Amino acid sequence: MQDFQFRVIHRNRNTKARTGLLTTPHGTVETPAFMPVGTLGTVKGLSQQNLEELDASIILANTYHLYLRPGPDLIREMGGLHRFISWDRPILTDSGGYQVFSLSALRKVSEEGVEFRSHLDGSLHFLSPERAMEIQDALGSDIQMALDECTEFPAGLAEAEKSMERTLRWAERSKRAWQRASHSDGKSPAGALFGIVQGGTHARLRRQCASRLVEMDLPGYAIGGLSVGEARPQTLDMVAASEECLPEDKPRYVMGVGLPEELAHYVASGVDMMDCVLPTRNGRNGCLFTSQGKLHIRQARYARDSRPADEACGCPVCRRYSRAYLRHLFVTGEMLGRILNSYHNVYFYLDTMQRIRHSIASGDFSPFLFDFNSRLQGDAP
Amino acid sequence: MQDFQFRVIHRNRNTKARTGLLTTPHGTVETPAFMPVGTLGTVKGLSQQNLEELDASIILANTYHLYLRPGPDLIREMGGLHRFISWDRPILTDSGGYQVFSLSALRKVSEEGVEFRSHLDGSLHFLSPERAMEIQDALGSDIQMALDECTEFPAGLAEAEKSMERTLRWAERSKRAWQRASHSDGKSPAGALFGIVQGGTHARLRRQCASRLVEMDLPGYAIGGLSVGEARPQTLDMVAASEECLPEDKPRYVMGVGLPEELAHYVASGVDMMDCVLPTRNGRNGCLFTSQGKLHIRQARYARDSRPADEACGCPVCRRYSRAYLRHLFVTGEMLGRILNSYHNVYFYLDTMQRIRHSIASGDFSPFLFDFNSRLQGDAP
Repeated sequence: MQDFQFRVIHRNRNTKARTGLLTTPHGTVETPAFMPVGTLGTVKGLSQQNLEELDASIILANTYHLYLRPGPDLIREMGGLHRFISWDRPILTDSGGYQVFSLSALRKVSEEGVEFRSHLDGSLHFLSPERAMEIQDALGSDIQMALDECTEFPAGLAEAEKSMERTLRWAERSKRAWQRASHSDGKSPAGALFGIVQGGTHARLRRQCASRLVEMDLPGYAIGGLSVGEARPQTLDMVAASEECLPEDKPRYVMGVGLPEELAHYVASGVDMMDCVLPTRNGRNGCLFTSQGKLHIRQARYARDSRPADEACGCPVCRRYSRAYLRHLFVTGEMLGRILNSYHNVYFYLDTMQRIRHSIASGDFSPFLFDFNSRLQGDAP
Repeated sequence: MQDFQFRVIHRNRNTKARTGLLTTPHGTVETPAFMPVGTLGTVKGLSQQNLEELDASIILANTYHLYLRPGPDLIREMGGLHRFISWDRPILTDSGGYQVFSLSALRKVSEEGVEFRSHLDGSLHFLSPERAMEIQDALGSDIQMALDECTEFPAGLAEAEKSMERTLRWAERSKRAWQRASHSDGKSPAGALFGIVQGGTHARLRRQCASRLVEMDLPGYAIGGLSVGEARPQTLDMVAASEECLPEDKPRYVMGVGLPEELAHYVASGVDMMDCVLPTRNGRNGCLFTSQGKLHIRQARYARDSRPADEACGCPVCRRYSRAYLRHLFVTGEMLGRILNSYHNVYFYLDTMQRIRHSIASGDFSPFLFDFNSRLQGDAP
């Protein structure tokens, strides 16, 4: 695990925001970082060359999806996920648990693991903490997640606690499986294992879960089970409760968030890593994130609008194409519309993260946070 | 029309193949040229930057589609098609006739023009030779086509002759409308008008139509109504018959062709320009054109194939991605599969044209033709 390191570089005085350098076997990531989601080994609508142009330093891939298609054996045979998809920068994979709980049919959860049916063909599968590590080892991802039980929302205290206890037991098993894989595989270091803080919307459980995970001394910690229906202030409360008990010198990753206007708030709570499908999914649905708020490109008022999607944006899409053209592409269902919208949105997220990092480094994070927040909420004028 | 010129540069000794330079208001095109089809102002799956990287020197757009969405008035307001889609190289537009005859519902053809219902919403429209020129003038394309009557296939001699006579009368009307537009519009020269040779599969009619179009002294001539169901040898016969009567010093464009292995044959018959949806349509359907024939990426035998789609290809797709990954993208329905396949196929077409041009210039066209032909037919081994 010498290949995995995290170092805090700057700290913001008024908040928990910080910048850092996360070193992985496939390169270094400047944090706080946003990870575009490449579910099936492709960030939807973008090529790997696009992602390099966009300076994406790390992407996420979904173990559940890759496990079903094309399968971990094929990916291992093809030399691992990096080689298979031709991406030589860092990759984080989730454990597959979230999708098993949200996508698959007929789940049967036991202490051993989860039996589930594929959402594609109904075939029967079994995912355990050990199996999740084994699959991620086949993928060869740089950062790997422990299988957790995704607590349903809303969950009462007793229910959430029971689920959290299982997540902790599964984290122990994940760690043992991960250590075995690290030792048995001489040729390359296994990815760094992150445990996941659960506990529903109960601050006490979040703190307890975080503290007990920290006792396992893992390379990093994720905060999961958020953005599942709870109000945003509650999300931030849960992040804050978890963060209280996480060590300064380890990276913290909030899974599956968030909207652009939320990014800086998570960072202010001490978060180092985030991921979200929103930039690409909204792009495909014609929603562009801009410095003035959301822009719904389908609207008739853009039909003759020769301005770029975001006049303050320096991305190749905004430098070249008008709202009128983007609208035309979208309403005619042309692929290029989805491509350009996704490109712009990913640029917007990554650019936002860079601004956040710069503002922390230069000591201007607090005014940045205030200004950014007031501009981004709501729709573009 | 000083902005439009055509100059033959090299001639092949054994065939009618030739290279040339076609100068338009938006730049010069080396011929023989293949024009990727950008139906709605976008070559499906590729960005304008991609097309520039691919060195596409001219693209085609469909008047019928752009007339319906976003409409010629909007495009004129946005500064013309080049500006609207952000493409400053040459554009050729068809007259809209072909799509009216092939796509729209409830056509009523009269001497005056064609009444038709939109394939999108059933709304009623009318296209005449004058209207087709007016619309293309609004688009501001560099090369514009006269409205022709697309003779149905198969058509007997009498039917084909009647249809051809109408096409000739419409060409006369197109020319008058085009001249009026050229004179009335002081600010920029109207695009160059091409007449279209019809005549079904009757060589005598093809010769007659070509000769009478040539009397109109148009900037260029297209050969239409081919690749509509007839056998390929017949297509080439009709091209040859038309070509016999077309002047040496004007560009010749065969509309809507063809397969890669056919390109050099058209060139051998004296063709300077071609267009076809095949590279992008087949790309979307998972069919890759390669130097060894067609490759159907869906096939299970490519699941673990780490070779590029075409080992002899230098395109960015073949340099970076394996068949295994392309297959994975295709079978999972990921947009990137359609994008990469389309990119490779357009590269393959444009690269083929460049090889054809070089072989003509260097005097090696005949061996090229033989070799190319024998390799390309059928499926990749």
